[in-house]
Amino acid sequence: MNSTENATGYRFAGVHSGLRASEPGRLDLALIVSDVPAAAAGVFTQNRVCAAPVHICRERLPSSDTRGIVICSGNANACTGEQGLDDARRMAALAAKAVGVDARQMLVCSTGVIGRLLPMAVMEAGIPLAAADLGGDAGALERAARAILTTDTRTKTCTRALNEYRVTGFAKGAAMIGPNMATMLAFVLTDAPIDVADLAALAPVAADHSFNCISVEGHTSTNDSLIFLANGAGPKLKGAALAQFREAAIEVCAELARDMASDAEGASHLVTILIEGTRTDADAHKIAKTIAESALVKTAFFGADPNWGRFVSAAGYAGVPFEEQQLSLWLGDFLLYDKGTPLPFDAAAVSGYMKANRELTMRLLFTLGSGRCTFYTCDLTYDYVRLNADYTT
Amino acid sequence: MNSTENATGYRFAGVHSGLRASEPGRLDLALIVSDVPAAAAGVFTQNRVCAAPVHICRERLPSSDTRGIVICSGNANACTGEQGLDDARRMAALAAKAVGVDARQMLVCSTGVIGRLLPMAVMEAGIPLAAADLGGDAGALERAARAILTTDTRTKTCTRALNEYRVTGFAKGAAMIGPNMATMLAFVLTDAPIDVADLAALAPVAADHSFNCISVEGHTSTNDSLIFLANGAGPKLKGAALAQFREAAIEVCAELARDMASDAEGASHLVTILIEGTRTDADAHKIAKTIAESALVKTAFFGADPNWGRFVSAAGYAGVPFEEQQLSLWLGDFLLYDKGTPLPFDAAAVSGYMKANRELTMRLLFTLGSGRCTFYTCDLTYDYVRLNADYTT
Repeated sequence: MNSTENATGYRFAGVHSGLRASEPGRLDLALIVSDVPAAAAGVFTQNRVCAAPVHICRERLPSSDTRGIVICSGNANACTGEQGLDDARRMAALAAKAVGVDARQMLVCSTGVIGRLLPMAVMEAGIPLAAADLGGDAGALERAARAILTTDTRTKTCTRALNEYRVTGFAKGAAMIGPNMATMLAFVLTDAPIDVADLAALAPVAADHSFNCISVEGHTSTNDSLIFLANGAGPKLKGAALAQFREAAIEVCAELARDMASDAEGASHLVTILIEGTRTDADAHKIAKTIAESALVKTAFFGADPNWGRFVSAAGYAGVPFEEQQLSLWLGDFLLYDKGTPLPFDAAAVSGYMKANRELTMRLLFTLGSGRCTFYTCDLTYDYVRLNADYTT
Repeated sequence: MNSTENATGYRFAGVHSGLRASEPGRLDLALIVSDVPAAAAGVFTQNRVCAAPVHICRERLPSSDTRGIVICSGNANACTGEQGLDDARRMAALAAKAVGVDARQMLVCSTGVIGRLLPMAVMEAGIPLAAADLGGDAGALERAARAILTTDTRTKTCTRALNEYRVTGFAKGAAMIGPNMATMLAFVLTDAPIDVADLAALAPVAADHSFNCISVEGHTSTNDSLIFLANGAGPKLKGAALAQFREAAIEVCAELARDMASDAEGASHLVTILIEGTRTDADAHKIAKTIAESALVKTAFFGADPNWGRFVSAAGYAGVPFEEQQLSLWLGDFLLYDKGTPLPFDAAAVSGYMKANRELTMRLLFTLGSGRCTFYTCDLTYDYVRLNADYTT
């Protein structure tokens, strides 16, 4: 169930360090601190080119004594060579010192422009400010959630209650949507007692059911990070209780992921792609992702154009074998393609559905098995092009 | 060498049938006829969903007694079920009858809107008009080249001379670039005597070195077709003469492909992506294609924004293993990323290069081997979104 009370035993901060020189007062540095050592695990970008902080987190996770995460927005610290690795380690060390824990207990994330060295003087001044600002209330969480944003238009937070425990998540971005930014970052914190091995097993499953089922333009960032912390005391959850926790954690991730697709760069529609009846879930995911990433599909949604041939043809090049007679397609409640045969339809009515609703659904039903996938994407708009055409100059 | 004289023994027509009801007088129906039976081979879309005419061509090729090809633009005859197959066969039969050959000697292609049945009454009236208009001069070829266009802004033709022989090609489209259209179609005709088995072996190689090295938005059409005809009499070319012919045919395809990328929907820049030093050519192709299809890369070119982190990060998710220290990157003559280290650069100068030139070059040099690929793409512009956002309504 939803909860208004956040996971306990965590403090948060979000401050203005000045990393974005052109935006006075904008929050750009966040800190998460667990009152006691927490189990920690993460999932990171599959890009061969990954940011310095991702290298540092990979070295340090999974861990059973993590104390916090320091995050900056405005600079990705990616493609920055050896200096970037030194800077990421130093950023974590500064945060650890400021909150009084060991350097290796602190994780580090960044999001922003690729290929620029981190201005360490700004970090040195800003991190103690963040440490001084730490608080456990909802306002502090909101400030941290705001400080990690780049081109997002709103914060993304979510809490689920599970008996006496809470699972609280916050996130930014969606794939690599931003004009001068990259990356999705998500942090999921719980006061439930979870064994580090169980947390490490959960992380990739949660990612597969949430952040790996959204696409803005399909560009995989160098910085993508999903990090779980679990700081609960007492016997670790097992069996049914652990399974319940996993469900709650996946729900939090799925809600944050959907929020990302909905808030994607320049988007005017959130499009849900339902794929059903494939041989496997993996096949359904492949087809959904291929449709979600097609510029022709995305411009059709922007234009409220029921040009369903684009959807079917995108399914056709997803690399999943099928025959046309094995596929039917709906847009909203309109059946347009029935087992390989095009149906006559009222184009104005379907276009009207696309114009009138910000949230649209496309359903592809195959006759091949019981595989399925729910995937979220957005439309491709003038604003997307405008926001992404020019930023570093 | 280039030639102004076309391959002999072929006649061409391009007429207005009325397939595009809203565009009076626009040429929309083309015919290619070989005076004698020709060797014929083709390469077609890899989309699981392929158009009816592609099914028909696949049934009929390779062949040593092809007499012609009938092509319509404005309707793809794709996702049209059994009726579509009947219509495509009938279209070929009508053309065969009009020029006095056997139905099975005629091939058929279509390009245009997906999911609409072909208006056969229009075809029945138009095909005899095309047959009556056949001519062997340059004007007739130009009319045929014009009649296959969809959103192309210009015809694409190319002829190479090879001793006493000629190789003439014409083409339309690029990937699936059009607003209400799909598809690339290319026809390569020669008066050289080529064995059908040699022609069939050449076709995929030529496609790999040309049309498979361009991308507009990466959407694979249901109708893509590349068809070769060779109608020369006498002993078939062998050995060095055959190798020379293959080179000429590949050159013709490569020039047509480059023309397509340059004329792509809404494009304001033609971008050449040079990948060198990968382990294999296939690796280089994978990296080039991933960069070419990134919306973030393409909007950066539109905005003349030297945001090279996007290029490197796109390379990183191409599925080819490499380390950052194994990669250097140039934009034009500017070295921006040197074996994993970002270099300081004059952003205004690099942006100036991107603004001042319609044709831009990006070069990624790896230290892994001798693999290489030259790939063409275009930028993602407001015009692309506008043209693709709305057409069927």
